[in-house]
Amino acid sequence: MEHPPQQDRSREHQKEWNMKIGILGSGLMGGTLGRIWAECGHEVTFSYARSAAKLARLAGECGGAAGSVAEAVAGADVLLLAVHWSRTSDVLEQAGDLAGKVVLNCCVPLNDANTDLVVGMTISGAEVLAKARPKARWVSCLNTIPSESFPLVFARKGTAPVPQVLTYGDDAQAKKIAGELVQDIGFEPLDTGRLRNARYVEPFAMATVELAYVQPGSPALTYRFDKLRD
Amino acid sequence: MEHPPQQDRSREHQKEWNMKIGILGSGLMGGTLGRIWAECGHEVTFSYARSAAKLARLAGECGGAAGSVAEAVAGADVLLLAVHWSRTSDVLEQAGDLAGKVVLNCCVPLNDANTDLVVGMTISGAEVLAKARPKARWVSCLNTIPSESFPLVFARKGTAPVPQVLTYGDDAQAKKIAGELVQDIGFEPLDTGRLRNARYVEPFAMATVELAYVQPGSPALTYRFDKLRD
Repeated sequence: MEHPPQQDRSREHQKEWNMKIGILGSGLMGGTLGRIWAECGHEVTFSYARSAAKLARLAGECGGAAGSVAEAVAGADVLLLAVHWSRTSDVLEQAGDLAGKVVLNCCVPLNDANTDLVVGMTISGAEVLAKARPKARWVSCLNTIPSESFPLVFARKGTAPVPQVLTYGDDAQAKKIAGELVQDIGFEPLDTGRLRNARYVEPFAMATVELAYVQPGSPALTYRFDKLRD
Repeated sequence: MEHPPQQDRSREHQKEWNMKIGILGSGLMGGTLGRIWAECGHEVTFSYARSAAKLARLAGECGGAAGSVAEAVAGADVLLLAVHWSRTSDVLEQAGDLAGKVVLNCCVPLNDANTDLVVGMTISGAEVLAKARPKARWVSCLNTIPSESFPLVFARKGTAPVPQVLTYGDDAQAKKIAGELVQDIGFEPLDTGRLRNARYVEPFAMATVELAYVQPGSPALTYRFDKLRD
């Protein structure tokens, strides 16, 4: 049956918003996101969980489907890759070449204990400096804020929302002093744990450089993290 | 002259809030922060700039002092290390052993062209996956949000402030589709450039793990970046 052009456009539009989504890895992330996308009206197929029963339960809860990785890939407009890093090779093998598929990747390359990145990270600048001067009381902070932001934040000091600065180090008292100086200039210090976390925050500083200077808009980037409650 | 205990306590309190701050590296970051801290009432000594004239100008602008690195270190309660990574060895050599000094470090270990980290980073999980399946249209996203956040964000979808998700990849159309799916579940996609930026965002995901699960409060972490205007 032929459809008139107008209906075709309508279907095209609908397709853009009601997508067939294949979940590759139906654990905490994939299961949660799949259920929510199903609630938004997308057609979701769950695959790759610890048991077929779990896949069936997820599918039943939200009116989705359960299937193999190959089945989830076959019909999908979009795939979500949401497995532990150690499983990615296995999933990709089952998934085929994925030619032309849009794949949303929410993996982080973690070791089996989920404590460290197994790809990319070795050491941080902050640790190199702390090794060079072990008697100093190091606190890393302010390296994730473009210098253009400081005068603007200070000018509106005290007005909500208060922007934050990730602040991290191994000396609690030194971190407290750093926090006071951070508050002085209109920011809220956000404790980000040990100095070793520089391995994570220094690369984040590079992400803020991308957001501040490469992406559109003013370079005066600020950020704020909040924790939601039920 | 002896002071009664009450005045001593008062001076102790004042000392905590009016600190002697030595700026090691009086460039964009150090110059800006030093001026603002001076405006807050701290005693600031600027050191290590391209010229003595610049140090004198900075000091004059805010009622601070200009001096050598050794002078900035000698009298300081707190130091700010704010030089290019390539200069850190030179500054530390001039600064001595820094024993007992609180050092705020806002350095990022950048190469001379300021394009890459010279410490820590080599590759990313996203790039490993993209190399394994080069025909797929990869978009990295959602890996910086704890799974606990998704149901809570979806439940309050449409209410401000809208939390964001860093979204990055080399296929603009695939990134657009990812953005639609991110909006469906109540987030705003924040374009963070190329897939290669996974080198910066995957470590950031580890920082969000610290903030969500190690630091106090609910694990349902969200974040939002904003750009200020004059």
